[in-house]
Amino acid sequence: RGYAQIRYNRLLETNPQLKCDQCDRSLGAGNGFFIRRARIVFSGNVHERLYVYIQPDFASSPGGSALNFVQLRDAYFDLALDAAKEFRIRVGQSKIPYGFENMQSSSNRLALDRSDAINSAFANERDLGVMFYWAPSEIRERFEELTSSGLKGSGDYGVFGVGVFNGQTSNKSDANDQLHTAVRLAYPLQLANGQYIEPGIQAYSGKYVVTPDQLSTGVSLGSEQQAKEGFTDRRVAASLVVYPQPLGFQAEYNIGEGPEFDPETLSIKVKPLHGGYAQTMYRMKFGNHILIPFAKVQYYDGGKKHERDAVSHKVYETEVGAEWQPIKNFELVADYSIADRTTRSFANLYNRQHGSRLRLQAQFNF
Amino acid sequence: RGYAQIRYNRLLETNPQLKCDQCDRSLGAGNGFFIRRARIVFSGNVHERLYVYIQPDFASSPGGSALNFVQLRDAYFDLALDAAKEFRIRVGQSKIPYGFENMQSSSNRLALDRSDAINSAFANERDLGVMFYWAPSEIRERFEELTSSGLKGSGDYGVFGVGVFNGQTSNKSDANDQLHTAVRLAYPLQLANGQYIEPGIQAYSGKYVVTPDQLSTGVSLGSEQQAKEGFTDRRVAASLVVYPQPLGFQAEYNIGEGPEFDPETLSIKVKPLHGGYAQTMYRMKFGNHILIPFAKVQYYDGGKKHERDAVSHKVYETEVGAEWQPIKNFELVADYSIADRTTRSFANLYNRQHGSRLRLQAQFNF
Amino acid sequence: RGYAQIRYNRLLETNPQLKCDQCDRSLGAGNGFFIRRARIVFSGNVHERLYVYIQPDFASSPGGSALNFVQLRDAYFDLALDAAKEFRIRVGQSKIPYGFENMQSSSNRLALDRSDAINSAFANERDLGVMFYWAPSEIRERFEELTSSGLKGSGDYGVFGVGVFNGQTSNKSDANDQLHTAVRLAYPLQLANGQYIEPGIQAYSGKYVVTPDQLSTGVSLGSEQQAKEGFTDRRVAASLVVYPQPLGFQAEYNIGEGPEFDPETLSIKVKPLHGGYAQTMYRMKFGNHILIPFAKVQYYDGGKKHERDAVSHKVYETEVGAEWQPIKNFELVADYSIADRTTRSFANLYNRQHGSRLRLQAQFNF
Repeated sequence: RGYAQIRYNRLLETNPQLKCDQCDRSLGAGNGFFIRRARIVFSGNVHERLYVYIQPDFASSPGGSALNFVQLRDAYFDLALDAAKEFRIRVGQSKIPYGFENMQSSSNRLALDRSDAINSAFANERDLGVMFYWAPSEIRERFEELTSSGLKGSGDYGVFGVGVFNGQTSNKSDANDQLHTAVRLAYPLQLANGQYIEPGIQAYSGKYVVTPDQLSTGVSLGSEQQAKEGFTDRRVAASLVVYPQPLGFQAEYNIGEGPEFDPETLSIKVKPLHGGYAQTMYRMKFGNHILIPFAKVQYYDGGKKHERDAVSHKVYETEVGAEWQPIKNFELVADYSIADRTTRSFANLYNRQHGSRLRLQAQFNF
Repeated sequence: RGYAQIRYNRLLETNPQLKCDQCDRSLGAGNGFFIRRARIVFSGNVHERLYVYIQPDFASSPGGSALNFVQLRDAYFDLALDAAKEFRIRVGQSKIPYGFENMQSSSNRLALDRSDAINSAFANERDLGVMFYWAPSEIRERFEELTSSGLKGSGDYGVFGVGVFNGQTSNKSDANDQLHTAVRLAYPLQLANGQYIEPGIQAYSGKYVVTPDQLSTGVSLGSEQQAKEGFTDRRVAASLVVYPQPLGFQAEYNIGEGPEFDPETLSIKVKPLHGGYAQTMYRMKFGNHILIPFAKVQYYDGGKKHERDAVSHKVYETEVGAEWQPIKNFELVADYSIADRTTRSFANLYNRQHGSRLRLQAQFNF
Repeated sequence: RGYAQIRYNRLLETNPQLKCDQCDRSLGAGNGFFIRRARIVFSGNVHERLYVYIQPDFASSPGGSALNFVQLRDAYFDLALDAAKEFRIRVGQSKIPYGFENMQSSSNRLALDRSDAINSAFANERDLGVMFYWAPSEIRERFEELTSSGLKGSGDYGVFGVGVFNGQTSNKSDANDQLHTAVRLAYPLQLANGQYIEPGIQAYSGKYVVTPDQLSTGVSLGSEQQAKEGFTDRRVAASLVVYPQPLGFQAEYNIGEGPEFDPETLSIKVKPLHGGYAQTMYRMKFGNHILIPFAKVQYYDGGKKHERDAVSHKVYETEVGAEWQPIKNFELVADYSIADRTTRSFANLYNRQHGSRLRLQAQFNF
């Protein structure tokens, strides 16, 4: 079981310098076809109380120009505390319960990339630690149905989730002597007419260390304490999902503070951040074909801690697109985006780029 | 399903400086046992119209001294346009339809390495893009039979194939704003006496960028346009395969032009290239044992674009050997080669090495 | 089939500078949760005479800060010479038959790490080559039973084993023109009362090359011959295992010589080495729960050839701990260790650290 996404981003492109590394490294000048994700899942209940989930990505880069090495995304183990699996301890590397869009599999997302505002919380959405999830059986079934029915749910990250984890994001060693904490509440309500609505709130807090390999010579980390113990890194977010039956709506917003490059002092400081997105979509069926047009707007003003020197970002982006599923194993997405992105980093103190492009993605589910 | 090849190349060696990096990094001084390939295939028809093929290699190096990391070779998805799958669109990273020997799986090749002349077209034979293949059902069956019967066919890359792809070879990002194009025609004829003969022609064209990580300080790229847009890279090849029933013959030749190091100006220039190989083999059965002696001669004069500074090569090599299959899951190959190889690169402006050696390979099919 | 180990090492820690890189890179300052191993085995008899075993590790690092890439541990192929598989040729990368603890799977070991004395023989316990194993059928069954019954045996590496291999340890290219040789004898005796006892002896010999990427500028390799052909690297070891029925005992000791950093001359020299460990353990059952308390002492005085500049080590360590298996798919180990470790390397000519800590490991078997 798995999926793969192959993209071509260069149609109707007005500005080849308009990029977003966390979104998709193949945006802009010099790029062509790109395997954004290729994943195979090894999972199953190996005991009535133990569920295993291992998901490597076959399109990861260890650095340099070499692509398509295999690296872990998920490697987690759910220990059920009760027979109905309402209470679970999750050990390993897994998604941090922060943000509906982060929880939702990329194979289910309509827009090609997650929003900068929510996704900047955790590169690759994951970290290594211990989580506790609780959901009543009937809600577990509802989470399941929201995914299997094609409504593009998040999967089951509990009605209540809380956990501790390293805090340096996935596939990185921890770098200080304290852990991050995250907590989340989400509930998929079913209205009398069958409509599903899922509100959620979540927050996390910890200290993030900007490690030497992420720091340019000439950039200061402020105090020695911040260099060693890390920068305050905390956020709170609200989510609302109205599932597309057939008209849907989805919005998230988060505020917080975290490490961010300061162009005036050439140092990294703890700065406020905020941003979010709103999306509407409409799910149509034509025979066996499913077509889902969507529109999304997003905004983010803050740092991306995992980028070199904790790059400062200001993002305005609007997308309109459609996903077409002629068969359940194949999806084609066209996504037209208009963006205005400003980054500030040591390499470029003020880099504002705006433009538009049409992006295509073929997704194969197997 | 998969296969692995483990080699030892140091027997009767007359010149430890005689090497060929694209062929086998474990040739020559300081080497011992080497895992040349270790591959597991995940494939299947996940829908009547969708075939998935994912083949990682477990013996890839991300650079430096670390071996045996896992990297993609193939990750492609065949969308059948008709129920008989005569018309297929292939999306993803896959072999470029250029050269019978390139198409043929290494698990089926008799000689340990592909010829320099044809294989220098694409490192690892693959790239990322979109291909179209057509073959009538009966010819699809014939391609299948030519492999399954032990005649060492290429598999089904269509009677007609055409595609566009990045052009920087597999597991590399594209580097310019245009795609390569390849086209191929091949037809496995069956004579009245049952003998199979497969002639083929193929060609490709594009611009190949010598990226900064492939360029030594001190080597010039000629014009700034060539540095950015790339060097002309195009070839045409003819192939002829007479399948070993029991006597076989196989030959390919290609001509073209591409980037090549010029030792006089210490720059990379577009230069003509040409070369090919011819092989004869004889398939014998002794009870359940199969024995296939073979002889191969090859010649190449041209650059290898994927090597640092597009190394200039002049290759004369003769091989005699035999493959022994005591059981279908195990093959042992002995390959005695006599070679005269001259390379010209910035690191060594004139490096001519000749010598001979006996190489052994154990191949396990599973 | 496979297993994963997730650790947290920072409880009751008295000295965050007390580290051991070969043991566990997540020991000490700045670390948190860590995936020590995550392995999936692809194995099976693909022919009555051919057994395939491919085991990648999903928690390997290609260097730098990137974790959790996938790299081979085992890729070996057993060719049975007889129908009963008493005589086997093993080709590929596999464990070198040297030391019971090295042969025993980490999934079966009680202490979190192998002893420095035995494990310093081969980083990751493996190398690439050709082995011959012999064991009578009844002893093959006994090896099998010693593992499957939960007695934590080594698996079947023969009563007699002998092999040749590159000698630069697993996932590294060979670096000189000669191979290492290893030989081992081990026999699991069954006493009249059913008690199993397994004595063993083993030895290996070869030349190990300290390659340029493992050498600091300023460190001398002695003669040019040693730089090219390598340093003498040979050991002999005795092993004794009394399986826990319910009280067990296990001890190994080895002596030899190998490359080791010399702080007085800032060079690498062939120096004597010796060391070993002794462990006692008690296997208890409470209903379906299994609890195995253990105590282990170890000592090592010698070099670690695979570490930069062949770091000189002097190690005294005592561990007391317990493994708890509430279900067969889940094990929790608590390991309290008190250690006194002195390393001498070019980076730190005299680095003595002592202290204690409590380590936790969750192991998932699937």
